[in-house]
Amino acid sequence: MTWEDIAAEKKSRIDGSIPQEWLIKGLQGDDNVMDYPARSGIMSSEELQLTNSSAVDLVNRMATGELTSVSVTTAFCKRAAIAHQAVNCLHEFFPDVALARAKELDDYFDKMKKPIGPLHGLPISLKDQFRINGLETTMGYVGWIGKYDTDDSVLVTLLHNAGAVFYVKTSVPQTLMTCETVNNINGRTFNPRNKNWSCGGSSGGEGALVGFRGGIIGVGTDIGGSIRVPSAFNFLYGLRPSHGRLPYAGMANSMEGQETIHSVCGPLCHSIQDMKLFITSVLAEKPWKYDSKVVPLPWRQAEEDEAKAKIKSGDLVLGFYNCDGNVTPHPPILRAVQTVVDQVKGAGHTVVPWEPYKHPRIVDLANKIYASDGGTDVFTVMGQSGEPSIPNIQELLHPSLPKVEVNQVWDIQLEKWNIQREYLSRIREFELKSGRELDAIIAPITPTAAIRHNQFKYYGYATAINFLDFTSVVVPVTFADKDIDTKKGDYQPLTEVDKEVQAEYNAEAYHGAPVAVQIIGRRLTEEKTMAIAEEIGRLLGNTVVS
Amino acid sequence: MTWEDIAAEKKSRIDGSIPQEWLIKGLQGDDNVMDYPARSGIMSSEELQLTNSSAVDLVNRMATGELTSVSVTTAFCKRAAIAHQAVNCLHEFFPDVALARAKELDDYFDKMKKPIGPLHGLPISLKDQFRINGLETTMGYVGWIGKYDTDDSVLVTLLHNAGAVFYVKTSVPQTLMTCETVNNINGRTFNPRNKNWSCGGSSGGEGALVGFRGGIIGVGTDIGGSIRVPSAFNFLYGLRPSHGRLPYAGMANSMEGQETIHSVCGPLCHSIQDMKLFITSVLAEKPWKYDSKVVPLPWRQAEEDEAKAKIKSGDLVLGFYNCDGNVTPHPPILRAVQTVVDQVKGAGHTVVPWEPYKHPRIVDLANKIYASDGGTDVFTVMGQSGEPSIPNIQELLHPSLPKVEVNQVWDIQLEKWNIQREYLSRIREFELKSGRELDAIIAPITPTAAIRHNQFKYYGYATAINFLDFTSVVVPVTFADKDIDTKKGDYQPLTEVDKEVQAEYNAEAYHGAPVAVQIIGRRLTEEKTMAIAEEIGRLLGNTVVS
Repeated sequence: MTWEDIAAEKKSRIDGSIPQEWLIKGLQGDDNVMDYPARSGIMSSEELQLTNSSAVDLVNRMATGELTSVSVTTAFCKRAAIAHQAVNCLHEFFPDVALARAKELDDYFDKMKKPIGPLHGLPISLKDQFRINGLETTMGYVGWIGKYDTDDSVLVTLLHNAGAVFYVKTSVPQTLMTCETVNNINGRTFNPRNKNWSCGGSSGGEGALVGFRGGIIGVGTDIGGSIRVPSAFNFLYGLRPSHGRLPYAGMANSMEGQETIHSVCGPLCHSIQDMKLFITSVLAEKPWKYDSKVVPLPWRQAEEDEAKAKIKSGDLVLGFYNCDGNVTPHPPILRAVQTVVDQVKGAGHTVVPWEPYKHPRIVDLANKIYASDGGTDVFTVMGQSGEPSIPNIQELLHPSLPKVEVNQVWDIQLEKWNIQREYLSRIREFELKSGRELDAIIAPITPTAAIRHNQFKYYGYATAINFLDFTSVVVPVTFADKDIDTKKGDYQPLTEVDKEVQAEYNAEAYHGAPVAVQIIGRRLTEEKTMAIAEEIGRLLGNTVVS
Repeated sequence: MTWEDIAAEKKSRIDGSIPQEWLIKGLQGDDNVMDYPARSGIMSSEELQLTNSSAVDLVNRMATGELTSVSVTTAFCKRAAIAHQAVNCLHEFFPDVALARAKELDDYFDKMKKPIGPLHGLPISLKDQFRINGLETTMGYVGWIGKYDTDDSVLVTLLHNAGAVFYVKTSVPQTLMTCETVNNINGRTFNPRNKNWSCGGSSGGEGALVGFRGGIIGVGTDIGGSIRVPSAFNFLYGLRPSHGRLPYAGMANSMEGQETIHSVCGPLCHSIQDMKLFITSVLAEKPWKYDSKVVPLPWRQAEEDEAKAKIKSGDLVLGFYNCDGNVTPHPPILRAVQTVVDQVKGAGHTVVPWEPYKHPRIVDLANKIYASDGGTDVFTVMGQSGEPSIPNIQELLHPSLPKVEVNQVWDIQLEKWNIQREYLSRIREFELKSGRELDAIIAPITPTAAIRHNQFKYYGYATAINFLDFTSVVVPVTFADKDIDTKKGDYQPLTEVDKEVQAEYNAEAYHGAPVAVQIIGRRLTEEKTMAIAEEIGRLLGNTVVS
């Protein structure tokens, strides 16, 4: 079999996993498919309501017996099936397994009169990088088709123990090393708000699925924006926790063993309340007893409370930047940053400009790290099937890239540490001078709103934060507006890539595209950073139900 | 100048830093020099008492104004001067600077009627790897003589802020990569209990100085036993915290940027109370605001209290092993492990055999990591002066060692993570089966008591714990006894290195040598592991004053 045959066979298995009765009919050709669930006739109005709810509400209602997991799971399975037909976002779909698990949980509840755990009965979607015993994890590589996992990833085990129901694994780009979602098995995943836009990547299937509410909390990974970009492009909240907060052990990955910049797991969801449900549920399982890289740090309610007290009394001090020195964001992003700054100031808090210290150098170093084996790992996997690189990867990696030597890796690691320390020095200097603590930083997460296909050129707003290992929460802000976000005429590009990025802006083409910012906290400050992100969301009034 | 000339000039500066009035006269030729402070006539009886005190007692008395820092600092400067003359343990000695700082602190106290911080006025000794602005950090390299530091290491800054007084930097082996202390500048540092024995290494000058009570709390570093071995060889408590608990930023090092196994900082001292004083003082300075690698984890008194409640009610569950599968310890060590097991059981706690999971493989991998650049880094530094390797290093590294490729480093890092996870699985399995938590593990830290010169062959008991990144506290147990610790006749060596180690045992030669164990806790469990170590010390009744 050729690689094309192998890929086509897998693709037909994916598409064939949707039951006949959930196939949509008579809906096609739309750019915006967000109304397909309502229009398809497949879902009851109760099912639409359930999927439009919050995870917190659903688990509360299942925990009292008001709702069954079977009803909730059925609703999300149907909506995920519609999502896949509309935007091509699944690599695995297993509603039968999910419903059997949901039934077990309902039986447990009937017998014990209590939930099995804080996520009792809740469907959780997983990026196709998490391993589930008995399923394939292709991660978009044709060469990995037919390799069935014999164990669960640690996070899968813990979510299961907390009561979650798994029903899908979602699409990713080949290699995971890009922020659009295309691979040689599944093709492209689209943005459900406009199929001309990307859903982001690498947790792009998650972004599209949860954005479409075919999922309520999705789990992605982020080494250079892969949770945050799809969150931003789908008007979702997304958490890139610091390394060591959530378990990553037992995942599939490209460049396994690369530890200079760590990939991390985190949720994509519709609210900070749901994000908190997710992270507190995982931490309650003591992940540090399973994964040696997890810091033994339970949820620190006191840190959240302290942040909330500051919020209440108008005492937050936030920094902000709208340009990292490499690339100036498009007008909708500049407006989003300014909107957040204005709202936060308007609520009585202090907002000050923050200089994004050495970001261009940081971005260079991050790119060196991502390519430090000269692509050996990813080209070896591609070589197993003979498949070619997807276009985004052709731009980033080619087999003739030089491999760096171990002493050069050490030099990079030392420079990384030094820059991280210098960054902390800057914060200390600010705090010493102002006599106040810097609580977080408001910044772009991408220079663009949800981007047109094959146009994702600049990862630096995301990767700088991975390099620094800061906590980052994406907050959806607004939508691009052709009447407000007009193109600047007299723009002088900062760099070559800036020129490319600027050339891409077109107010008409981006009209309506989701726009987000990231709220950046210091390392391992998830409690505080999430509390601030929640308040910003509240000030923006942006918690939308589709 | 030849390297010999440069080294001799530095050595004469070290030796010449001792004031005329502190030169010892008429004392020489003794193997055991522990009584030199009393016999030298240099120290007053009050000074002897001060240096025989505990750090907790000294800071308490300075905090009430009962003692001045000048008197305490003078006493330790004198005793350190005697130590250096007796065992050759200093690379830097600056009593004038120390006494000026002590005077400042006394003036502060007079004016403010309160101490400047929790370490107010306390002399702290530093391994010659910590940078102090204006001094050299040679780390035993001739090539680094004459390079004066322009900044303090982070830990130095924080100790200073907490009120510490610096007065010495102590000797280390060239490269730091060995557990005896010899370099081409200072020669060899000896064990003050018997100059035929090693003081250990690489924080060997610390071990000798603090063992001699020329220091009260010393700060070392440990990537493969370098705090724990000198602690063991000098009848001291020593802490190897997990990576990320204490700041390491801004230190000199060999193989800077190597992060597969992290070197960590930690104290060598005479009691767990003093160890706690040290670590709580540092954590109170919020080191995570200075060093990006430090986890934001203040001292968790609740964890200590919980451990102490278990201790009180006889509820501890400890594992133990006395052989790692590579090398069987000498008779004194086997006896020490058994003594601790018996004492802990005798106090009503549970002690069970623990299988040291995959330790031989772990030791192989650790050695690969230590040599992963083929010695490039250390031979480059030696090349700057032309000095040769010390004998211990000649055994470990030579310039023709192969350099591993970046993908091989990643493979090692992945295998490391997997073994760490499997280790956690073993613990979970034990806990699931027994229904009880495994609180810590009792194990050898070296296969030998304080070793004879050039005989340190096996690092595995120490390095396995660095590889696992577990917290480890060395507890002094006893002294080798030629009448009890007789050599076994019919011994079958497990490995080639075991044969070498066994051949070295000689009951007569080791009579009186300090013997210790390590108490191993999971990652980042300093509070609990120290509480258990303290209780073991109490049961042993081993807190000796020289």
